[in-house]
Amino acid sequence: MIRVAILGATGYTARELLYLLIRHPEVEITTLTTRQETRPAVSEIHPSLRGRLDLTLENLSPREVAKRADCVFGCLPHAASAAAVSDLLEAGCRVVDFSADFRLDDPEIYQQWYNVEHPDPARMPGTPYGLPELFRESIRDAKLVANPGCYPTSAILALAPLLKAGVISPQGLIIDSKSGVSGAGRNPKPAFHFPECNENLAAYAVGQHRHTPEIDQILGTFASVETNVVFTPHLIPMDRGILTTAYADPVGNVEAGAILDVLREQYQDEPFVRVIDELPNTKNVAGTNFCEVTARVVNGKVVTISVIDNLIKGASGAAVQNFNLMYDFPETTALL
Amino acid sequence: MIRVAILGATGYTARELLYLLIRHPEVEITTLTTRQETRPAVSEIHPSLRGRLDLTLENLSPREVAKRADCVFGCLPHAASAAAVSDLLEAGCRVVDFSADFRLDDPEIYQQWYNVEHPDPARMPGTPYGLPELFRESIRDAKLVANPGCYPTSAILALAPLLKAGVISPQGLIIDSKSGVSGAGRNPKPAFHFPECNENLAAYAVGQHRHTPEIDQILGTFASVETNVVFTPHLIPMDRGILTTAYADPVGNVEAGAILDVLREQYQDEPFVRVIDELPNTKNVAGTNFCEVTARVVNGKVVTISVIDNLIKGASGAAVQNFNLMYDFPETTALL
Amino acid sequence: MIRVAILGATGYTARELLYLLIRHPEVEITTLTTRQETRPAVSEIHPSLRGRLDLTLENLSPREVAKRADCVFGCLPHAASAAAVSDLLEAGCRVVDFSADFRLDDPEIYQQWYNVEHPDPARMPGTPYGLPELFRESIRDAKLVANPGCYPTSAILALAPLLKAGVISPQGLIIDSKSGVSGAGRNPKPAFHFPECNENLAAYAVGQHRHTPEIDQILGTFASVETNVVFTPHLIPMDRGILTTAYADPVGNVEAGAILDVLREQYQDEPFVRVIDELPNTKNVAGTNFCEVTARVVNGKVVTISVIDNLIKGASGAAVQNFNLMYDFPETTALL
Amino acid sequence: MIRVAILGATGYTARELLYLLIRHPEVEITTLTTRQETRPAVSEIHPSLRGRLDLTLENLSPREVAKRADCVFGCLPHAASAAAVSDLLEAGCRVVDFSADFRLDDPEIYQQWYNVEHPDPARMPGTPYGLPELFRESIRDAKLVANPGCYPTSAILALAPLLKAGVISPQGLIIDSKSGVSGAGRNPKPAFHFPECNENLAAYAVGQHRHTPEIDQILGTFASVETNVVFTPHLIPMDRGILTTAYADPVGNVEAGAILDVLREQYQDEPFVRVIDELPNTKNVAGTNFCEVTARVVNGKVVTISVIDNLIKGASGAAVQNFNLMYDFPETTALL
Repeated sequence: MIRVAILGATGYTARELLYLLIRHPEVEITTLTTRQETRPAVSEIHPSLRGRLDLTLENLSPREVAKRADCVFGCLPHAASAAAVSDLLEAGCRVVDFSADFRLDDPEIYQQWYNVEHPDPARMPGTPYGLPELFRESIRDAKLVANPGCYPTSAILALAPLLKAGVISPQGLIIDSKSGVSGAGRNPKPAFHFPECNENLAAYAVGQHRHTPEIDQILGTFASVETNVVFTPHLIPMDRGILTTAYADPVGNVEAGAILDVLREQYQDEPFVRVIDELPNTKNVAGTNFCEVTARVVNGKVVTISVIDNLIKGASGAAVQNFNLMYDFPETTALL
Repeated sequence: MIRVAILGATGYTARELLYLLIRHPEVEITTLTTRQETRPAVSEIHPSLRGRLDLTLENLSPREVAKRADCVFGCLPHAASAAAVSDLLEAGCRVVDFSADFRLDDPEIYQQWYNVEHPDPARMPGTPYGLPELFRESIRDAKLVANPGCYPTSAILALAPLLKAGVISPQGLIIDSKSGVSGAGRNPKPAFHFPECNENLAAYAVGQHRHTPEIDQILGTFASVETNVVFTPHLIPMDRGILTTAYADPVGNVEAGAILDVLREQYQDEPFVRVIDELPNTKNVAGTNFCEVTARVVNGKVVTISVIDNLIKGASGAAVQNFNLMYDFPETTALL
Repeated sequence: MIRVAILGATGYTARELLYLLIRHPEVEITTLTTRQETRPAVSEIHPSLRGRLDLTLENLSPREVAKRADCVFGCLPHAASAAAVSDLLEAGCRVVDFSADFRLDDPEIYQQWYNVEHPDPARMPGTPYGLPELFRESIRDAKLVANPGCYPTSAILALAPLLKAGVISPQGLIIDSKSGVSGAGRNPKPAFHFPECNENLAAYAVGQHRHTPEIDQILGTFASVETNVVFTPHLIPMDRGILTTAYADPVGNVEAGAILDVLREQYQDEPFVRVIDELPNTKNVAGTNFCEVTARVVNGKVVTISVIDNLIKGASGAAVQNFNLMYDFPETTALL
Repeated sequence: MIRVAILGATGYTARELLYLLIRHPEVEITTLTTRQETRPAVSEIHPSLRGRLDLTLENLSPREVAKRADCVFGCLPHAASAAAVSDLLEAGCRVVDFSADFRLDDPEIYQQWYNVEHPDPARMPGTPYGLPELFRESIRDAKLVANPGCYPTSAILALAPLLKAGVISPQGLIIDSKSGVSGAGRNPKPAFHFPECNENLAAYAVGQHRHTPEIDQILGTFASVETNVVFTPHLIPMDRGILTTAYADPVGNVEAGAILDVLREQYQDEPFVRVIDELPNTKNVAGTNFCEVTARVVNGKVVTISVIDNLIKGASGAAVQNFNLMYDFPETTALL
């Protein structure tokens, strides 16, 4: 039994993580933290867990958490997370961090996009990016795994194999993503007030979304040259799901079948990526850890379409998949 | 041309009112107020009005407003509204007040439900309740009209004629209402955060909703005895629309046809109430000032079902209808 | 391992049942049937099961099914189901039937509401009603269990204990239910076309819904006298979830606390019914086999509010719960 | 007064057209047709028009329609429309045709995309494309106007001025569009069944949508060379609204401000196009004839974002705008 803690257990990703961990036969959830001082029961914060989990959220220091947990899932905001993670690692915990703090290798890029100096820059370059399909071996032995962003997961799973295989150009990549509103978190804001975003559709943060450098870093690794993606996220009036439509220039004369073959070869043994001929939709993967992806060639452009559940494969499911790898449990445990 | 002002012009009802007033051939919108000090353009507050209305929201006293307007629509919160209304009336304006402040006749009942002493109790009993279908004559000459609540409009239009005709009992009335989320206003709160109320359904304020005494007061007038309705509002994951299902004990042996006849007789000349045989739905009246209502008798109970658009017939459309009556314009002006 | 078949495996309840059965450690799904002749793969009918279940839907007779299955879940339409069930039972299978065919005891009432003569009336009275919380013992040994309707489950769990305890009157019960659209099944019809029922709200089948006699039969058992409920279902623009608001006259002078005590006593050991003080909402039980229920007393009426997921506790989850009872597995297996 | 008829008056675009025409002071709606033989009242087909329009839908030949109408709005399917339009024109009517039949100039391209031989190819090249902002003068005197497709309207209004000004390259244009479900029409199909498309998100007809040649034809006119757009439509779980995100290579070193200047210059006197700095959303134009558009430059790509209401500016509003031009009424009549 692995003793598990969640830091910052009040949000949607923490709730989804709890749903998964409750079903995990090798996990004992011992500790949930919050920065509130009121010690609420988990069922006050997440009423859907009434009668299913009897724990209290506490305001604990990382040191205190480390006494009660072997592995910690960090659901704290960026910068706050890095500080806590450092303490946890020093206290001997292993950590899966949901924040962006250890996804990027370069502290300067981090500072440029997150407007804050990184609290622990030395640890940035060595931390594996927790996308098991592409970085499985480095995750296995890691003390710390940087759980990927939701948009990057959807885009990278579609594009990285094509860049690696050299069938698309690393220049001029366009990533047009559409996400359900749960990706915006649990904090009420005018833009996410029901009468504002219901029956509505908008692009946001065009050219400025913080997932951009993360996508470029990982795609650049596979392309062996720098990419400069144009990334446009859109807000869709639904709870969960991301669909990413990506456009790339093919290298040479390539057909959709060849693109699909590259994807199939990459993912043929993967339990959670389904390369399909049909056009995917988010509902077929909602509530699951699956990614579905397909490709077309249209008027000389390669078009890939990929879907995930942003809270599961885009967050908490990926975290459990990483956890399973780190502790050598079957990778699909608690995820099917 | 009637010069018109809106007090508190930042919310959804004010926006709907602007849509209607822009189309009104006898109205000049001169003044919009806000308690913000920043003097925002109306298009900053309501971007859908970009290019359609060139006005600035100002923080003005009622006296200042009175200099620029003949008629004022008050969209302020309760208690704040009563204070402003008194000043406006004294300065010679006529007022359609959206707040609850002048709907009730009895200051004690007001204080009991709104937890505040009424600022102007003397004016409460004489103010007409702005439901033209039932109180048309008293609205015509009024300096001040109390625009009805959205739930009360849907319930009263269905039940008042049946109480007046003596075909249902005033005792044991049950009013089960369902409303879209725009009724909750524009202020973001956790309960109205998209991922919380989308794909969700709940009753709220059971037995405690402030529209209860308003319904009882008006129904009591038509019943000639006190009613004590059981009122249960529910929040529905859609923008706009109210459907009210009401249950009443018939007086004697009554059939649905007789109930419908009473309703048809009441509303035969009304431009905005449609008594129908079919079961109504909210979408058929969305965006309009119409109310649709039908009735059934099931296992010895009278069941009425009525629908309105909560922002129009339940608020801003009713206000314009009242305005048209007050100024002797055709009652449907700007409403069809 | 119990070999399991699903008759009529193309609809939403069958899909939900598959999600649950895939996780059941004691189940081997051997057979799925359809009346289509094309032998589609399960992933063609339910693409969300791509890569998770490798079976073909076949057009098989009950006799052929019986050779491959110990227990059969019947998802056929009424009347068609009864005929198949009889054959399956004679061939030695145990059956959980989702149709209405064996819920009612009285063939005449069945014929009156379903407009068809019952194919196997002799079997109607002895078949247990598959609501484990109220009929657990009779389910354990049953060869055939009639899985309850979704609306009845939500209403009966709230009202039956109160009738049994004699704290509410069996006369004048009003059941105002609200359901997501998945309850209407998978067959496209104008009323369920997205642009028709999105952002819309309607009552339907007022006084005529086929779940009415089922509710009356079960409530009558607990009341020891006939009930004649007024049942009004409403269609809500969301996928899944039922909320039922029921109104009853109390017997004597009763307070909400006493009503809640009755419910708590009834359900204190139940794994899937949560009696709560708060007002419940459907989202907290969506995707689960839980029912949440509370009660209030308002102006002398008892008001109960209960929520379930119509496809799980209202259909497939209840079926698995019944299955677990029939085979003496822990009742929560595959359901938490 | 212009006597007006609508051919094929049962669908969503016809209903929206009726809403607009009812408000038009110079229009008398005399005739509505359907291919049904049952002569339904308009309120049976469009219940929201109960009490507002007292007409019967009739199965009439174009010749019969021509006796009763000066101007005909054609809402028939492609190919069927062309045949009727020819008869109407010969009988002296003027026609605004909603179908695709007269949008394309080239019968071969028509046949290739619509899989049917065009019934009246001679009339194709001379018929003006009814986008008043770009083809106003040719619309004024036209006997027949081809009302544009919804997706093309959103894409062309954003891109045509940029091509005309030579600030973007006509090669490699990517048009990623997102539409509400009303665009799919009123006919129920599995893909538009509420539980299928609610809370769901998908691309469809990738590289195969029939609006592609229409976009290429018009953009090619402004580019003076052939374009070959990559057009990807997506289905969004909402009723109405289209948002189009388009990606283009700039010609030379261009900044967003210069792009916006080109758009502003083009549309400065247009009553229905608002060039804005902010990112637009569909809700701000829902229910209106407005288009909002903005532009950004991201990593060397020009990104335009434009929104319309697909049923109004994308269909019926544009038709009334064309009608106003054809009859020399103020262009905004019935549209504000």
